[in-house]
Amino acid sequence: MNENRKSREIGIVLGSTSDIDKVSSLFSVLDEFEVPYEVAIISAHRTPHLLREYAKDAPSRGVKVIIAAAGLSAALPGALAAEVDLPVIGLPISTPPLNGVEALLAMAQMPPGVPVASVGIDSGKNAALLALRILALYRPELYERLAGYRENLARDVLEKAGLLRDKGLPVWVPEKEET
Amino acid sequence: MNENRKSREIGIVLGSTSDIDKVSSLFSVLDEFEVPYEVAIISAHRTPHLLREYAKDAPSRGVKVIIAAAGLSAALPGALAAEVDLPVIGLPISTPPLNGVEALLAMAQMPPGVPVASVGIDSGKNAALLALRILALYRPELYERLAGYRENLARDVLEKAGLLRDKGLPVWVPEKEET
Amino acid sequence: MNENRKSREIGIVLGSTSDIDKVSSLFSVLDEFEVPYEVAIISAHRTPHLLREYAKDAPSRGVKVIIAAAGLSAALPGALAAEVDLPVIGLPISTPPLNGVEALLAMAQMPPGVPVASVGIDSGKNAALLALRILALYRPELYERLAGYRENLARDVLEKAGLLRDKGLPVWVPEKEET
Amino acid sequence: MNENRKSREIGIVLGSTSDIDKVSSLFSVLDEFEVPYEVAIISAHRTPHLLREYAKDAPSRGVKVIIAAAGLSAALPGALAAEVDLPVIGLPISTPPLNGVEALLAMAQMPPGVPVASVGIDSGKNAALLALRILALYRPELYERLAGYRENLARDVLEKAGLLRDKGLPVWVPEKEET
Amino acid sequence: MNENRKSREIGIVLGSTSDIDKVSSLFSVLDEFEVPYEVAIISAHRTPHLLREYAKDAPSRGVKVIIAAAGLSAALPGALAAEVDLPVIGLPISTPPLNGVEALLAMAQMPPGVPVASVGIDSGKNAALLALRILALYRPELYERLAGYRENLARDVLEKAGLLRDKGLPVWVPEKEET
Amino acid sequence: MNENRKSREIGIVLGSTSDIDKVSSLFSVLDEFEVPYEVAIISAHRTPHLLREYAKDAPSRGVKVIIAAAGLSAALPGALAAEVDLPVIGLPISTPPLNGVEALLAMAQMPPGVPVASVGIDSGKNAALLALRILALYRPELYERLAGYRENLARDVLEKAGLLRDKGLPVWVPEKEET
Amino acid sequence: MNENRKSREIGIVLGSTSDIDKVSSLFSVLDEFEVPYEVAIISAHRTPHLLREYAKDAPSRGVKVIIAAAGLSAALPGALAAEVDLPVIGLPISTPPLNGVEALLAMAQMPPGVPVASVGIDSGKNAALLALRILALYRPELYERLAGYRENLARDVLEKAGLLRDKGLPVWVPEKEET
Amino acid sequence: MNENRKSREIGIVLGSTSDIDKVSSLFSVLDEFEVPYEVAIISAHRTPHLLREYAKDAPSRGVKVIIAAAGLSAALPGALAAEVDLPVIGLPISTPPLNGVEALLAMAQMPPGVPVASVGIDSGKNAALLALRILALYRPELYERLAGYRENLARDVLEKAGLLRDKGLPVWVPEKEET
Repeated sequence: MNENRKSREIGIVLGSTSDIDKVSSLFSVLDEFEVPYEVAIISAHRTPHLLREYAKDAPSRGVKVIIAAAGLSAALPGALAAEVDLPVIGLPISTPPLNGVEALLAMAQMPPGVPVASVGIDSGKNAALLALRILALYRPELYERLAGYRENLARDVLEKAGLLRDKGLPVWVPEKEET
Repeated sequence: MNENRKSREIGIVLGSTSDIDKVSSLFSVLDEFEVPYEVAIISAHRTPHLLREYAKDAPSRGVKVIIAAAGLSAALPGALAAEVDLPVIGLPISTPPLNGVEALLAMAQMPPGVPVASVGIDSGKNAALLALRILALYRPELYERLAGYRENLARDVLEKAGLLRDKGLPVWVPEKEET
Repeated sequence: MNENRKSREIGIVLGSTSDIDKVSSLFSVLDEFEVPYEVAIISAHRTPHLLREYAKDAPSRGVKVIIAAAGLSAALPGALAAEVDLPVIGLPISTPPLNGVEALLAMAQMPPGVPVASVGIDSGKNAALLALRILALYRPELYERLAGYRENLARDVLEKAGLLRDKGLPVWVPEKEET
Repeated sequence: MNENRKSREIGIVLGSTSDIDKVSSLFSVLDEFEVPYEVAIISAHRTPHLLREYAKDAPSRGVKVIIAAAGLSAALPGALAAEVDLPVIGLPISTPPLNGVEALLAMAQMPPGVPVASVGIDSGKNAALLALRILALYRPELYERLAGYRENLARDVLEKAGLLRDKGLPVWVPEKEET
Repeated sequence: MNENRKSREIGIVLGSTSDIDKVSSLFSVLDEFEVPYEVAIISAHRTPHLLREYAKDAPSRGVKVIIAAAGLSAALPGALAAEVDLPVIGLPISTPPLNGVEALLAMAQMPPGVPVASVGIDSGKNAALLALRILALYRPELYERLAGYRENLARDVLEKAGLLRDKGLPVWVPEKEET
Repeated sequence: MNENRKSREIGIVLGSTSDIDKVSSLFSVLDEFEVPYEVAIISAHRTPHLLREYAKDAPSRGVKVIIAAAGLSAALPGALAAEVDLPVIGLPISTPPLNGVEALLAMAQMPPGVPVASVGIDSGKNAALLALRILALYRPELYERLAGYRENLARDVLEKAGLLRDKGLPVWVPEKEET
Repeated sequence: MNENRKSREIGIVLGSTSDIDKVSSLFSVLDEFEVPYEVAIISAHRTPHLLREYAKDAPSRGVKVIIAAAGLSAALPGALAAEVDLPVIGLPISTPPLNGVEALLAMAQMPPGVPVASVGIDSGKNAALLALRILALYRPELYERLAGYRENLARDVLEKAGLLRDKGLPVWVPEKEET
Repeated sequence: MNENRKSREIGIVLGSTSDIDKVSSLFSVLDEFEVPYEVAIISAHRTPHLLREYAKDAPSRGVKVIIAAAGLSAALPGALAAEVDLPVIGLPISTPPLNGVEALLAMAQMPPGVPVASVGIDSGKNAALLALRILALYRPELYERLAGYRENLARDVLEKAGLLRDKGLPVWVPEKEET
């Protein structure tokens, strides 16, 4: 194993490179939180041997959470969860014509005994945040940053009231904002 | 490999034993056609190593077609098709609460490059007949028997006209039947 | 806060008591792994104030992972994830007439920024195992037990071959089993 | 509370500003009927505390009906209906890839005890008209205007017959129109 | 018009008598709140003339809100909303084989201009509560009772914790309950 | 062709005898209207030659409308419509696990050029009435009977008000009923 | 009634003018067969009184078949079938976001007693051909033309083989074509 | 029969020429494997006689596997499987507004006795590969090429890691790649 892999705590596995743009928020959120991650292109069906190699070595490389993004029948997260006991987050990707419904169902409806944590279709942001919440369980400073992130979300929402005002709409604002 | 496996031309793989009663027509059709088969219980997610062993040895054991029955996210047929180049028939099994819809979608919507042949939900009979049609391509006597089977299906339909008559319904029968 | 709550690492929140029998595997799996948990009945819509109290205090009580089971529009896991930065596992419960499809969609399709980890409909077992995988990240002995559990799953599958033999079916068994 | 809020009888709550263009008919219908309203951006998951503040004060501000527009898992109207006993109209917003089906289901399939009144996906016009019908129960002049609106709808339909004639189609017109 | 109709504020219209048992909570909730109502059996397709008579006279009889329960293509609430400007609540009823999905869609997806307020499939309780929330807008004592009802819902949930204890589960209870 | 077939104006074709109980209202409605019909068991897939014989001879036997009942992929009505230019009514039959949804879609979504008239799943009554409406176009006495049938439907609805009264419900009845 | 309406045998009713381009094949097919028709814009919900006037007078105007095109909850064909005993063909129109699925279900799943003949979503051609098959029952020359139309469809298919050849594909052609 | 048809082992039947671009991978994969095929345009509903001629002669022409591509109600593969005992692969084609869901269901949910092998919607590549796997059962050189194809798929996946690196992402590569 090469040195620079050591600190990668989140392993992102993509079923194909064509999914990359749909999951770009995965990378941006993790970059924002400065949590090291690695990205692998592995197909459950086209490179099953690679999948096993990846899963077996992941814990020794320091990977704590795996995020697996796949479309169509989306076997990827389940296949990873079958090979290693790390938490595996399934990120269903939309592809025409069924738009990811089949991927969501395939990830969620796993047989009893082998769990996958599904997030929403194309929701790279929530996949990343879920991984961070898991990591934060034993890292108080990360937990703090997540709390800060949630506060920022709230602040962003409040600031958008300005947008309504620009449209001339009668805006409601919370009490303390008004003073 | 033990001797008596040699002649098994159809490999039936079940995702779990709880599916057995739903696919009993699989066995009865193959028995009727006297085509030797083998049955294995293999879970794509709970015994992935077994799945690889099964798939790798199948051709050398004489298996020509694999029928894989599974419910829920139903990764079984796809995982087998990813390990061996035999034709793999996917038989989706109904389980509550989605009743096999997710299994059918997971089998049909495979990524390009790794084909699975899906039949209807719980349709063990069609899975068996599809396997037999494949075997019959180079075995004229089996092809003849399939043609005979199809004729019998037609005869059965005709004979059911009697049932309508018993109910006092005005029955239509084809010309030659009447004479 | 009373003393005996301290060590409860998994917080199970049920939307209603009528869901209890559908999620009994939640309790049995956690009992099997001897991981302490607590159970609360909280409705996102009927007791929203309770939900906030629960979420706010959970980290100080030692809760690491929340499992929230709910049917119908299933706002429970999302509402919890909105109040606390712990990982929240959503367990959709089937209720007629839509059988949990709406609960699965409501849990998976969360807005960006507030993640929920969805498992399968009525799949208490996978919800429990996912929570255990998260806890096991920093507890090697639990990680070992999960690996053992997975091996047992595999052994159970193998042992079911006997069932096939009892039915007189031609059974395939893996190589080392045969000797 | 500031003065100019007093007369706002309809409270419109949007889950996000990105939904604004999809619900613009909300504003135009209410403007047409000259019924004062207020608009707030509140996310059930990103600003739950704001949601409670909004709901609690709404009756004292004079709000009679709340219209809550949201996409995805769409917890907004249910969360508002859980905090205040005003009638809450749920307006599901379409977002790819599921196009609002999940939002409609989440709004309609509320648990017993906490009602939400769902209208069609993206149907801002019907949300506004439903709110007006409620307000009109005790305001005869508004009831009259609604009756007039319905008559205008009918007239608009009749006038479109001209469009058919311009296309050279053989048009049917009602008896009194012909004379 | 006969005298005793005068005070009926809620008009319940059922598409068929076979739906009566599925909506019995409609009656029990309204009885509990002592709000007078009337029940009519009217089919949009089998008795369209009755529907018009009903709708036209409803306001003069004192009806403030109409609740229309129907299954299958469920045209009833829309047809009523097309004839009178009262708020019309659509209550979709489940019937095999589609279990009310078609009824929910038909009620929710009304054309722009004619609003229907849909509640959940078979959710008589929420239909009744929605009607009561509308009536309560101008009747403070009813508004008080609704608030009390909501508090009772919360209390019921709390009391169910006892059920968990009886099963020997480790129960979480809110702070003030413990003292 | 045998003599007694001559006057059969409606041809009912069933895909299998197992569907017979689900469509019994087909027979009872046609018997009530004393319109002669014939019943045939023909499978589009198991007896395609029979289907062609049936379709080709139908007009010369006096058949004016064909009602074809089938479940699953339900090719029957489309195959008949492809062989003869009579109006063909498709009656989708519910079978588990998809409950006739696939049959309805297969009948409705015919390719352009070959029309099928679909009625509701298992709705034998509407299939029969649709056939009667077609026959009645040139038979005034049958048209009269259909009008009478529709009036009876309305009367039945009215009579059910008694059922409500027996339950102690406050019943609305139309004006003229009251006197 | 004005003179030139007399001979219109097919009554086309559109729920809105925005549907006109989606059903243009309705007009072109009927024009091709030189069957006179009339077109009306009638909304079941916005102009219910017009609907009744239309339905009541249709038979006396000579209308034999009604084709009703509508989207969303699509009450139009059912409402017409409830007012007159002519055969009514329901043509579901696709509108975002559900794309006509709700319209198809609303048309097909009519309550027992009031039949509608549904064709495919946006399938104006099949609606027209179904109407023509009904008219042709008593008009041999029209029946002949329909047979000719069907032959042309077959010929068109055959001629498209040329298209394949132009692409350099190895084309199969039927026996008699080759000579 | 003309000479050059002899060696065509795969018969591709398209329901219409408008489907050709959606299935172009069918041709490219078969060309790549140098397996001779023939293409026919046959509509199950518009040219049923052609369908029978095609099916009956296929075995004598040397056709081993039939691939039938169709959209909408997609009766084509089932109709072919009803006329000849060759394996028939159903390739559902997406067409608006239901996007091929109805075609997939119609192909998969065949009645017992007449099997069709369904692949994914628009998945010409998998249809071709499934046909090749069937042919390869008795042609070792083709089996070898399929194994090679699968290895290439794996290699392609590996090579895409470069793409990730170009985007500056931290890439995981398998052990032997690194040296």
